[in-house]
Amino acid sequence: MSFTVLVAPSGFKESLSADQAADCIESGVLRAFPGLAVIKTPMVDGGEGFTKALIKATGGTLHQLTVSGPVNEPVEAHFGFLGGSDEPTAVIEMAAAAGLSLVPRDRRNPCVTTSYGVGELVRAALDRGARRILLGCGDSGINDGGAGMAEALGIRLLDQEGNRLPHGGAALSRLAAIDMSGRDPRLEGVRIDAAVNWHNVLLGERGVARIFGPQKGATPMQVELLAAAMETYATAIRCTTGIDVGMAPGSGASGGLGAAILGLLGGRLHPRYDIVMQYLELDRFIAQADLVITAEGSLDGQTPYGKVPAEVAARAKIAGVPVIALAGTIGKGVRLNFEHGIDAFASILSRPCSLEDAIFSAPKLLSRAAEDAVRMVMVGMKLGGTLAPGARP
Amino acid sequence: MSFTVLVAPSGFKESLSADQAADCIESGVLRAFPGLAVIKTPMVDGGEGFTKALIKATGGTLHQLTVSGPVNEPVEAHFGFLGGSDEPTAVIEMAAAAGLSLVPRDRRNPCVTTSYGVGELVRAALDRGARRILLGCGDSGINDGGAGMAEALGIRLLDQEGNRLPHGGAALSRLAAIDMSGRDPRLEGVRIDAAVNWHNVLLGERGVARIFGPQKGATPMQVELLAAAMETYATAIRCTTGIDVGMAPGSGASGGLGAAILGLLGGRLHPRYDIVMQYLELDRFIAQADLVITAEGSLDGQTPYGKVPAEVAARAKIAGVPVIALAGTIGKGVRLNFEHGIDAFASILSRPCSLEDAIFSAPKLLSRAAEDAVRMVMVGMKLGGTLAPGARP
Repeated sequence: MSFTVLVAPSGFKESLSADQAADCIESGVLRAFPGLAVIKTPMVDGGEGFTKALIKATGGTLHQLTVSGPVNEPVEAHFGFLGGSDEPTAVIEMAAAAGLSLVPRDRRNPCVTTSYGVGELVRAALDRGARRILLGCGDSGINDGGAGMAEALGIRLLDQEGNRLPHGGAALSRLAAIDMSGRDPRLEGVRIDAAVNWHNVLLGERGVARIFGPQKGATPMQVELLAAAMETYATAIRCTTGIDVGMAPGSGASGGLGAAILGLLGGRLHPRYDIVMQYLELDRFIAQADLVITAEGSLDGQTPYGKVPAEVAARAKIAGVPVIALAGTIGKGVRLNFEHGIDAFASILSRPCSLEDAIFSAPKLLSRAAEDAVRMVMVGMKLGGTLAPGARP
Repeated sequence: MSFTVLVAPSGFKESLSADQAADCIESGVLRAFPGLAVIKTPMVDGGEGFTKALIKATGGTLHQLTVSGPVNEPVEAHFGFLGGSDEPTAVIEMAAAAGLSLVPRDRRNPCVTTSYGVGELVRAALDRGARRILLGCGDSGINDGGAGMAEALGIRLLDQEGNRLPHGGAALSRLAAIDMSGRDPRLEGVRIDAAVNWHNVLLGERGVARIFGPQKGATPMQVELLAAAMETYATAIRCTTGIDVGMAPGSGASGGLGAAILGLLGGRLHPRYDIVMQYLELDRFIAQADLVITAEGSLDGQTPYGKVPAEVAARAKIAGVPVIALAGTIGKGVRLNFEHGIDAFASILSRPCSLEDAIFSAPKLLSRAAEDAVRMVMVGMKLGGTLAPGARP
């Protein structure tokens, strides 16, 4: 049996896709330990890369189309169909049509950005005969509660005068009625399963506007406006469909898209890895591995709450396989991860430098960090063979 | 036999003494692996810490006195006597009287800084009856070829008119004669053994002015001026004492202090670890260790040329004990160290930051890096016990 390393990283935001990160780690591992067996499983949550990862894993098909992006300009988006599935199952990631990376930095205002394009992707999937839709949430650039998506599917959001509201989350503070009469009838015959971060809710102190608004460019006043608008929106949904989305787990996912999936589209929300792991076969690869290497841009006290390294570590821990994690930034509270299956971690940095330099050099830094970490592990492997069992940690 | 870690770091320039670095590493190691046996041997070369390390190792005595510092202002300096030695043996580090850290940043001009205070330390040692002097070189802030030290011991450096030259290396370009008649007669009866970097020479393309002048604040023009002055100085020494110091190994140590020790004081130069290791008993501690951790501010392609981590690693390699190295900056050519006994290394940085921040946070960063590196080694130790021997790296 040869020594096998499973490489299962997330992407590094703004610098490396999960595929690229996996390649960098593999090259470093092999420099430290040539001839080692390496299995690569680039990891996704519901965000960027969700569609391509599931398509790749199942041998499915990818479809490109132009939709209306988060700032109402056309964007090249994509969705797919799973391969080998009995019922035609579409795969959509909301970030492909309304992701933060599609919002230019100088236009990051979640009061006005829209999820309309996500609804267009759902429509396109229905046009191609989807009977089931896997809808990945994450990396969004919007905070419109999925109102734009709903509109693209024929649902009308109206003010006191019966006029349609403009795009964006802020306008929902004037929402008076939801007209479901024009809702795309095909939604009745399709099962929508959304992959969401289970910790995100629409309303309250831990609600989507307050937790994620600032990351998307909202000022403190805009955060409060959006929080109030989401209250109005949730009330209107409850009055219209009887579904109480406000504090439902995942309702706050992707700028509140979860709320619309649940309350207006008749879909279901699932903890994202419950869906992702059905296709990535991580557990099968873990069973073959002696060591797991995961990675993400940051590793900190938030990692255990739904981030890729924590999910990988939790599954590896069940299998008794040690896990090391690499990250650009080792942040506050990082040692909490020791309780969640990560055995050791290292930063990819090797000298004082700016964040911009680190992002620019990320491929090289990650590859070298993987090499250096494996060399450190190899020191221990040599020691482990020479020590009396009682002396081992 | 319990698992034993030997902690043998250098100091981190401008942030941690070797003692402090050893304490930081120890605390990190024990967080990762409580109850582990830790032996600390803070390492020195001939520079800062040389005297105190040898005094401490032998139970010797320390003496404080005020001398004239590198910018001609009084500085509090020290020297010592070894404990347990048959002949009274003084220990002096040149950096205590003429070190770079004694030169304010805005006065770093090696054309004028002087080693005069080093001569005063030698005189004080003679006053207390020294029959042998161990003179540590390193971390100097001067480039006067040891002319100042010679003057403090009664040797007169004269220009064409027979006037004494002012302090500093640049003035040596006007050196016309060396008058040895006033040389302290006690130098005849004392053995001076200097601990120097064997790679440093006084003259030529790899001479002290060209290699170290810029670090000490010299402009390119000042470097050329100093290089020419060192030529004149070496010629004058040869004419006076018949000793050819120009390309002698170690003659360029500490701004050329090695040349004066060899050519004017009748002393001998030694590779610095040949002297240091007689007292620090590193080899004895290595023999007790399962793992060695060393550290220095920088680790790069220069490390194998006389730096502490390389010396520690070379000795550990002979004993077959693995070595890991921690550093603030992992620099160019660092992988050369794998050929010199370092098995793995890690940076102490954990996120993008400036050099100033890294220096300020060095104690915390080093302690955490030690913890993280040991955790990585522990992953390997667990693996090492479970793998078939043939599968090991």
